Amino acid sequence: MNKVGLLVVLSGPSGSGKDTILSELAHKGQNIKVSTSLTTRKAREWEIDGEHYYFVDKDYFQKKIEEGQILEYAVYGNNYYGTPKGPVDAWLEQGETVILKIEVNGAEKIRSFYPDCVSIFLMPPSLKELEERLRKRETEDEDEIQRRLLIAAEEIRRSVEYDYYIVNDAVECAAEDIYAIIRAERHKTQRMKYVISEVINNA
Amino acid sequence: MNKVGLLVVLSGPSGSGKDTILSELAHKGQNIKVSTSLTTRKAREWEIDGEHYYFVDKDYFQKKIEEGQILEYAVYGNNYYGTPKGPVDAWLEQGETVILKIEVNGAEKIRSFYPDCVSIFLMPPSLKELEERLRKRETEDEDEIQRRLLIAAEEIRRSVEYDYYIVNDAVECAAEDIYAIIRAERHKTQRMKYVISEVINNA
Repeated sequence: MNKVGLLVVLSGPSGSGKDTILSELAHKGQNIKVSTSLTTRKAREWEIDGEHYYFVDKDYFQKKIEEGQILEYAVYGNNYYGTPKGPVDAWLEQGETVILKIEVNGAEKIRSFYPDCVSIFLMPPSLKELEERLRKRETEDEDEIQRRLLIAAEEIRRSVEYDYYIVNDAVECAAEDIYAIIRAERHKTQRMKYVISEVINNA
Repeated sequence: MNKVGLLVVLSGPSGSGKDTILSELAHKGQNIKVSTSLTTRKAREWEIDGEHYYFVDKDYFQKKIEEGQILEYAVYGNNYYGTPKGPVDAWLEQGETVILKIEVNGAEKIRSFYPDCVSIFLMPPSLKELEERLRKRETEDEDEIQRRLLIAAEEIRRSVEYDYYIVNDAVECAAEDIYAIIRAERHKTQRMKYVISEVINNA
């Protein structure tokens, strides 16, 4: 039986709660692989190389782009952020569910490479709530908060490009929603074709 | 906010466990409405009118067909079986999830009337297991069992027409699968369009 993995793209404005939900999903022990991005920015004190990001230098990043090993990348400030291709393809071949946390332009690229992927847009309960969450972090100054809110508004306008839309009112509930989506998608007839053709041949 | 209900079509060979799963789903208290069919056959001793079927006479059934109040119907032996339109439309308008238990030809008709419906094919673990289940019932004679197995083989061949494919190895697990499909489908962007356009207008 051929295995068919499931690629899930998760987007949402900064402050929508993507990271909290991903760690909630990981705790459910659902054989879900979360792709780790490559970045050229410096690690923060609490960040672990290979867990939060792979921290690399610009030459290495550039080389990986040229080798076609970066699925999509974006530049913020002076830093590159990208999704490595190798682990994603290896997991999909093993039949795993792979989640990419990615912004809207990156998601568009992933959809063109992997038309069978499933994309989920995570919404904060409201823009007001989003602003409060960004302020609570106290890691960004006022200009940065305003910039993120502008980007958020643009991202929200593009949420219609996604297959699924989840409002993150409560983390546990939103994580359950994503888990249900994964469970449902794994039962899509098009993903079960190898199983089904086997059954039909025996019928 | 406009409400958009979700119509779910559940098919599967006789003996695949549709009824057991539907009662399992009803016990989960998930605001799931299961459509009750109309039939002209006589009620069995343990059957309750309005619960297992609406038991009606042929004139009434014929009249309802002419009035366009029967979404689909089939004839087995001398008896009519059909899905009444009224309750389905009323529930969908209220934003409910409505499940129709229906065979493959009926499912095809429902898809043409309700293109947004979601269809699920329920498979027994194997044809051998299906045969055993039919025998265990002891309500059908050998000819009838053989006839049902032939129909089952034909239905299984048409399972690829469905959106989702579930193997009923364990009732609880299959019910959870269907519940996940319902939860996921309710988060499809196309079904959330009223919510999303409201959010976008405020962004």
